[in-house]
Amino acid sequence: MSGGFFRSRWVEGPAGVEELDPAGLAPGFRAGGVHVGLKNGGATDVGLLACAAERVDSALVLTRNASAAAPVRICRDVVDQAHVRAAVVNSGNANAETGEKGLADALAMSERAADALGLETAQVAVAETGVIGVPMPMSTVLPGIEAAAKDLRADGGTVFADSIMTTDRWRKACTLKAGGVTLSAQAKGGGMIQPNMATMLCFVQTDAVVADPGAALRRAVETSFNRITVDGQMSTNDMVLLQATGASSRPLPAGLLEAVLLQLAIEIVRDGEGSARAGRIEVTGAADQPEAERVARAIANSPLVKTALHGRDPNWGRIAQAAGAALAGAEMDEIGAESIEAADLGADTPEANIALRLRRGDARAHVYFADLGHDYVTLNAEYTT
Amino acid sequence: MSGGFFRSRWVEGPAGVEELDPAGLAPGFRAGGVHVGLKNGGATDVGLLACAAERVDSALVLTRNASAAAPVRICRDVVDQAHVRAAVVNSGNANAETGEKGLADALAMSERAADALGLETAQVAVAETGVIGVPMPMSTVLPGIEAAAKDLRADGGTVFADSIMTTDRWRKACTLKAGGVTLSAQAKGGGMIQPNMATMLCFVQTDAVVADPGAALRRAVETSFNRITVDGQMSTNDMVLLQATGASSRPLPAGLLEAVLLQLAIEIVRDGEGSARAGRIEVTGAADQPEAERVARAIANSPLVKTALHGRDPNWGRIAQAAGAALAGAEMDEIGAESIEAADLGADTPEANIALRLRRGDARAHVYFADLGHDYVTLNAEYTT
Repeated sequence: MSGGFFRSRWVEGPAGVEELDPAGLAPGFRAGGVHVGLKNGGATDVGLLACAAERVDSALVLTRNASAAAPVRICRDVVDQAHVRAAVVNSGNANAETGEKGLADALAMSERAADALGLETAQVAVAETGVIGVPMPMSTVLPGIEAAAKDLRADGGTVFADSIMTTDRWRKACTLKAGGVTLSAQAKGGGMIQPNMATMLCFVQTDAVVADPGAALRRAVETSFNRITVDGQMSTNDMVLLQATGASSRPLPAGLLEAVLLQLAIEIVRDGEGSARAGRIEVTGAADQPEAERVARAIANSPLVKTALHGRDPNWGRIAQAAGAALAGAEMDEIGAESIEAADLGADTPEANIALRLRRGDARAHVYFADLGHDYVTLNAEYTT
Repeated sequence: MSGGFFRSRWVEGPAGVEELDPAGLAPGFRAGGVHVGLKNGGATDVGLLACAAERVDSALVLTRNASAAAPVRICRDVVDQAHVRAAVVNSGNANAETGEKGLADALAMSERAADALGLETAQVAVAETGVIGVPMPMSTVLPGIEAAAKDLRADGGTVFADSIMTTDRWRKACTLKAGGVTLSAQAKGGGMIQPNMATMLCFVQTDAVVADPGAALRRAVETSFNRITVDGQMSTNDMVLLQATGASSRPLPAGLLEAVLLQLAIEIVRDGEGSARAGRIEVTGAADQPEAERVARAIANSPLVKTALHGRDPNWGRIAQAAGAALAGAEMDEIGAESIEAADLGADTPEANIALRLRRGDARAHVYFADLGHDYVTLNAEYTT
């Protein structure tokens, strides 16, 4: 643990990290947000993030959901992912399952933001999150983008973070200083969090030099957002954007990006729809890597394990059952209590460690997951189209 | 629809089926049940079922959970599955994850029942259901088996059906007459219902001639118990037993066994832990059969779809999202509202039909599933080890 931001027991940040006010973005970046009516109650719902530096090295990681939303398709097909200068985001409408109009709308958002910022369309990523299957009200969104562009601020980090939230109960943002570089990040989660970052958005800005942003981001996402699950779902809209100006002429301290993304990922799990506790299941001794992953995810997504985490019930039998189901057809003995550590399920902690030792090989995998309580049912049985 | 027992809109029984009192078993069979204290409140928790005929053709289908319980291992390794004369069952204790003692206990139950009935151990199947990881109190169970053996009755069908129940809210049993044969059946469900019959038990008796009981049972299970899911879990203990004496010298009417097992399977879904409504998802136009199955099960197990079924929300976007996640990485257009029929989700019916048409090939699959409501959370967050 280093610095107050790395609050999870599962995250170890590099030494010498200083936590700054998350309103202040990394040098060279400005952001803002406005309310156009996609969300009720006056909350900001259109956000804009832009970098002053002409040269930005960037990388995007996008959902692999085959029914990917329009903004994801625009990022995939139109945006120059290695040189993203700006991002335009809305919350309240996912612009998913909206057909040709949806594609035109997402492109129009990108174009309008580029116009307002004096950039090319290919330099502006677009991200959207919210209800699926509802056409975008472009007559309010496009003026909103222009308004946001007129009020970008170097201390707009928290305004931007708020403008991307949907069912999040708290803001997820940080600005950290370490090794002579500054890194700021904003994220939003909600339900549908599962491998490959479902309905989560995350934006990371830094003045560090990042030689290969694509490789750095993929590596950090693999150990963070791709290892969490709230309800086993994968969204149509998720995206992570890393932008690095290199203005500090210094590299990112080793482990900083990974630690920031993991802390944000765990915040997303802890703030999963209706979630109260987070768990970490570690499976060891699996026959191979796919088996280790399959068993860990089966346990993490088991509603019986999730309700046990919620009810603080150290019910190791449910872990044996879920693992056995994931290994269906394998010739093996019963898993047995001696192979399972589940006591933490019953402990009075917000984060519970669970472990399962198989005796089939050397492969291991771990997954972070949310519990399942009444609030998830209330939110999702009553949140309507 | 033929006869009052086939109540589901999804089940069509053969013509000319007469429904009898489910207490009366098929000719040649007797059953009974006693209370030994595995369940609270005096409910029967040890059941015994026996056939008077020396020659019985039978078949067993057992869970594929790799952490299979002791009784499943005894049925697999000791019982002559083609000639099962009797079955001994307890409810309240699964005798799963109980190691060597569990295996010895399950075998002892089989042996004690065989002794009491004048049979060989290999002729007596054993089934158990309930909590996992708790040693069996054999000093009460074994005398219970003897007591049950002394009070077997031809009209013991409902007593036996009650003795196998755990969290079921209602008894699942029927006795039907058609084409000159009688078929009686008893089942229990609960949570953890998913492919391969998780924590469900089903016993079917008939005086029909069944030439190849193994093939007949596998075919009927494939279209019934293997097509249902309550919460995506697979139990350590599930079992279906078919016994046929052939005393009527007539074959089973075509479709009767399939219809009975499908009606019982749907009763189990409708009575899933905390369940209020059942859904049927049909996926067509998939690239191949595994893809059709994967997409249908992803939708059926999606907590977002399950809560929409519970909340009567015709939220087709969640179906598109779940399907897209199951097809992750595929190159395809958005699924789109025009490919999804979800109106039934919002209807005022206990059974809702949902359909998804892909445009990738000719394969199809369907799955029946339970909704997800507060009662599931209450039951499973508070049902304790």
